[in-house]
Amino acid sequence: MKLYGYWRSSASYRVRIALNLKGLEAEHIPVNLKSGGNFDPGFVAVNPERRMPVLDIPGVGALTQSLAILDYLEETHPAPPLLPVDPLSRAEARGFAQVIACDVHPLQNIRVLNRLRSLTGADKDTVRAWAIAAIEDGFAPLETIAAARSSAFLFDDAPGYAECCLTPQFYNARRFGVDLTPYPSLVAVDAACADLPAFQAAHPDNQADAEKDG
Amino acid sequence: MKLYGYWRSSASYRVRIALNLKGLEAEHIPVNLKSGGNFDPGFVAVNPERRMPVLDIPGVGALTQSLAILDYLEETHPAPPLLPVDPLSRAEARGFAQVIACDVHPLQNIRVLNRLRSLTGADKDTVRAWAIAAIEDGFAPLETIAAARSSAFLFDDAPGYAECCLTPQFYNARRFGVDLTPYPSLVAVDAACADLPAFQAAHPDNQADAEKDG
Repeated sequence: MKLYGYWRSSASYRVRIALNLKGLEAEHIPVNLKSGGNFDPGFVAVNPERRMPVLDIPGVGALTQSLAILDYLEETHPAPPLLPVDPLSRAEARGFAQVIACDVHPLQNIRVLNRLRSLTGADKDTVRAWAIAAIEDGFAPLETIAAARSSAFLFDDAPGYAECCLTPQFYNARRFGVDLTPYPSLVAVDAACADLPAFQAAHPDNQADAEKDG
Repeated sequence: MKLYGYWRSSASYRVRIALNLKGLEAEHIPVNLKSGGNFDPGFVAVNPERRMPVLDIPGVGALTQSLAILDYLEETHPAPPLLPVDPLSRAEARGFAQVIACDVHPLQNIRVLNRLRSLTGADKDTVRAWAIAAIEDGFAPLETIAAARSSAFLFDDAPGYAECCLTPQFYNARRFGVDLTPYPSLVAVDAACADLPAFQAAHPDNQADAEKDG
């Protein structure tokens, strides 16, 4: 398998964690999102969405969209599971992940922040305020959910689908300087994940294409 | 079951279609998104995310996030299916849906357009240009996918997961005045859906809380 990704792409980071949790190997193909490598014809031929990640599986095809890839991995490599067994808990884990993937992250990725600048003339402080507002808007209800949990991780005693999304979003939150003190339960889950090799190996700083100057 | 929703909420519309396709009944509870009813304490107690839809199932719980609800319905009421059988086609259908749910719709919902106005001072034309750019950015690759399909609908010979997202996004695209001529395959799928009672009954104009003046 080949995973097309970018060290700082939140969606690529989610899939890296999932592959590691399931013990699956993939060749990492870096595509430079910052310099627009996702618009190169060679990459557009792989993914007309011009986004990362893409999981290219020989004999199968090129899968896009991080959550669709997580579900594909879960269906084709069920152990260890990313989702709990009962339908309610599965829906809760997916719902938690989708607060991040559908409500928070889409508002603060590179493409959208660039458009915010070009279309509205927003300055650096306004762009940062926009990103922080999106993150805080999602973290508040997620903290309520995390505070009420009865398992070691969010929806089970091992990390899974929800943590694959939470940890990359925490990485972004720290980059934007979000005050994390209102979210002690989320901070605790993120810290527990940070102790695990699957999460450490997936961290942006540990990717071959990481830039030391950011 | 109770479905908390709003006639024009794209995510509510997705779940209405899915319930209809599966022949499931739900009591519709309107929450006025335009006047901020989703911030009322009574609704926040139901869903701390302050978003719609919420599918409240007696003896189970209150499910949030439209795609998580679609997967829950698929797992608990498998027939008729919303997703194809083989893992690749399932990933493709979910990926198609997520282009809309994760890349397009998050940028043009009411909450985000309001924040765009308040934070950047964007005028009406800029807000409209922002929404149209988000929709066109997603529709272009989706047209490529739809043009290559080999089935009557997107991923099967009946509409499912992907169409539950496409049709509501088409409704939004028309509201914003997006030129749809570059997307003939998407237009054809949307038209085929519009002929079906499950889609007709879910249409915003056919909801009890629809406002005739928009």
